[in-house]
Amino acid sequence: MTTLIEVPAGLEGVIAADTTVGDVRGEEGFYHYRQYSAVDLAASRSFEDVWYLLINTELPDKAASKAFAARVAGLRELPSGLEAVMAPLASGAAPLDVLRSALSVLGAVAHWGPSMDLAPQELAAQGLIAGAVAPTILTAAWRLAQGDDPIAPRADLGHAANYLWMLTGREADEDHVRALEQYLITTIDHGFNASTFAARVITSTGADMAAALVGAVGALSGPLHGGAPSRALAMLDAIGKPEAAEKWVRDAVVAGDRIMGFGHRVYKTDDPRSVFMREVAQRLGGDLPAFAVQVERTVIDVLAELKPGRQLYTNVEFYAGVVMNACGIPREMFTPTFASSRTIGWVANILEQAAHNRLIRPTARYVGPPAPAPVPEPE
Amino acid sequence: MTTLIEVPAGLEGVIAADTTVGDVRGEEGFYHYRQYSAVDLAASRSFEDVWYLLINTELPDKAASKAFAARVAGLRELPSGLEAVMAPLASGAAPLDVLRSALSVLGAVAHWGPSMDLAPQELAAQGLIAGAVAPTILTAAWRLAQGDDPIAPRADLGHAANYLWMLTGREADEDHVRALEQYLITTIDHGFNASTFAARVITSTGADMAAALVGAVGALSGPLHGGAPSRALAMLDAIGKPEAAEKWVRDAVVAGDRIMGFGHRVYKTDDPRSVFMREVAQRLGGDLPAFAVQVERTVIDVLAELKPGRQLYTNVEFYAGVVMNACGIPREMFTPTFASSRTIGWVANILEQAAHNRLIRPTARYVGPPAPAPVPEPE
Repeated sequence: MTTLIEVPAGLEGVIAADTTVGDVRGEEGFYHYRQYSAVDLAASRSFEDVWYLLINTELPDKAASKAFAARVAGLRELPSGLEAVMAPLASGAAPLDVLRSALSVLGAVAHWGPSMDLAPQELAAQGLIAGAVAPTILTAAWRLAQGDDPIAPRADLGHAANYLWMLTGREADEDHVRALEQYLITTIDHGFNASTFAARVITSTGADMAAALVGAVGALSGPLHGGAPSRALAMLDAIGKPEAAEKWVRDAVVAGDRIMGFGHRVYKTDDPRSVFMREVAQRLGGDLPAFAVQVERTVIDVLAELKPGRQLYTNVEFYAGVVMNACGIPREMFTPTFASSRTIGWVANILEQAAHNRLIRPTARYVGPPAPAPVPEPE
Repeated sequence: MTTLIEVPAGLEGVIAADTTVGDVRGEEGFYHYRQYSAVDLAASRSFEDVWYLLINTELPDKAASKAFAARVAGLRELPSGLEAVMAPLASGAAPLDVLRSALSVLGAVAHWGPSMDLAPQELAAQGLIAGAVAPTILTAAWRLAQGDDPIAPRADLGHAANYLWMLTGREADEDHVRALEQYLITTIDHGFNASTFAARVITSTGADMAAALVGAVGALSGPLHGGAPSRALAMLDAIGKPEAAEKWVRDAVVAGDRIMGFGHRVYKTDDPRSVFMREVAQRLGGDLPAFAVQVERTVIDVLAELKPGRQLYTNVEFYAGVVMNACGIPREMFTPTFASSRTIGWVANILEQAAHNRLIRPTARYVGPPAPAPVPEPE
């Protein structure tokens, strides 16, 4: 008989796989893609270079960088089988749910087929398509929901610039393009979260890449995982003006209300994404970033006074919302924008799982009434 | 720092949840739904009664049985938002992939919303819809792929009878209806397989029921999980006639070829589903069941002679294919038919996960080059 192994609830701390994609070191406030600090990558490289790193395990040289950027730029158009259903798929549906449906259709109409039957480079090629069309799907879903026509991608723009182009139909400022690009780089991957794990469980059955991505998008749509960068912004709205911050925060702490955008399951110190996004927000300038910094300071000071020892740090949601807002991204698109870059992290994990596969199949402990009981006859 | 916990590869034997849905006792060749033997249930109850058991934890009395059957029969029609996209979704796609896309659309257009925000009975009501429309989606996908129009469900037929009706447009014989009904009952659930686990991981983030079902369908589409009941039938085709069986099996065993429809990861004795499906196949009569029994006998005898000690038992695929074939189900619909009943098992697991939720989030061990390494400047 198989021995049952007791582990902490939620499989916390249980090693489900070995990985070279990256890691999160929560105690240190540090996370990395391959051997590079994610924040260092965001500070100095393009989104496409980091995408290349995730998929190919190393950074590209100049020629490879140029070729890769051109290759993925050429994959942004929706395949015709998908374009034909975009309008009905988007009808009344949230963008993230449209991404789920559309990635499913993408793999189905293109007959991607079981990952276990494909050469690594074939599977990787499917992953590039997914990463390249996810922004097209999401921005089209948003525009359709507003009653606007989708805007076709432009292959002459970089990944982030094209994202803003498809969303608004205007060429964005360089500052905003770079800010969004840096946000997207910092959210490509983040250890073994629930969506990444879901993608690996599905891949472990040999299923096609679309199946794994669809499961990952589904997991990300759960409030306990994907979070809601818009909640932190909603809090800033509720506070309203700088001079109201202290009273608002004090009342919230006294009432025991949750402060949005603060606290993280893994980081026990500053969230490195938050620190970096604060810099990005301040670089962009304007009232909202300054207000956000003031509110952050107030929360920390009020907590230090009223709940000494209960240190809370801002998480990625807090300044991510400020940055995306400054870039002209509507709030309903905050989590979908996050999903557009995380798709690439999922793909990297899917490729690794497929290359070193073993079916992931834990067990459950039956705790119901003893079986077998006699089946009563139908009355 | 979180302690990392080493466990067997693929999380084998690791307890990921407590459950009262059911269990598989592989050493005994026994599995159960709630406290009842699944095979005993299939021998004596209707599909709808067992469905009720899975969802409500107890078998229905006469009035509840009738009311439940009427309720789910009334849920078989595709919602209009889904019906409108069925033809393009099914265009050139495999039925299981169409189910994946269609369940995604179903939840999206109906705004099912996060499972964690719903009352248990609301979530259960969504699960009834999913279980009721899955056969409608799958049979429509099959007919559209053949260039035929889908056939609308009939609320005056039982679950299995309606399945065959939607597939063929003819009222099936009572014998075939009951045989299919028994097959469907035996496949509703089977412990903590990879698709059930995927559904639970996704539900654990608080995501909506469609997200969890879509991930489960994706996992089932993997060859290492969903298997292929048609492979066993293909082997019978390859053997061709009773008098060729012994030579064919002998050659295959000597060559070390895999014998399709034999062997299972969990059962170390007769697979109870196989034993029961053999009875069902023999009850239907005809040449193919008799031929299948002869081949099974031959495989066991030849193995006993050539590989003593290497006992192999038929698994659910072997006779399931024979039974479905006898019921007029085309081979491409074997795994989708399995998925149509397994949807109900997924729903039961999703409801249990949502009712006692905790985020399922194991960890990975980083084994790449030491981080952080300095990020090289772009060349």
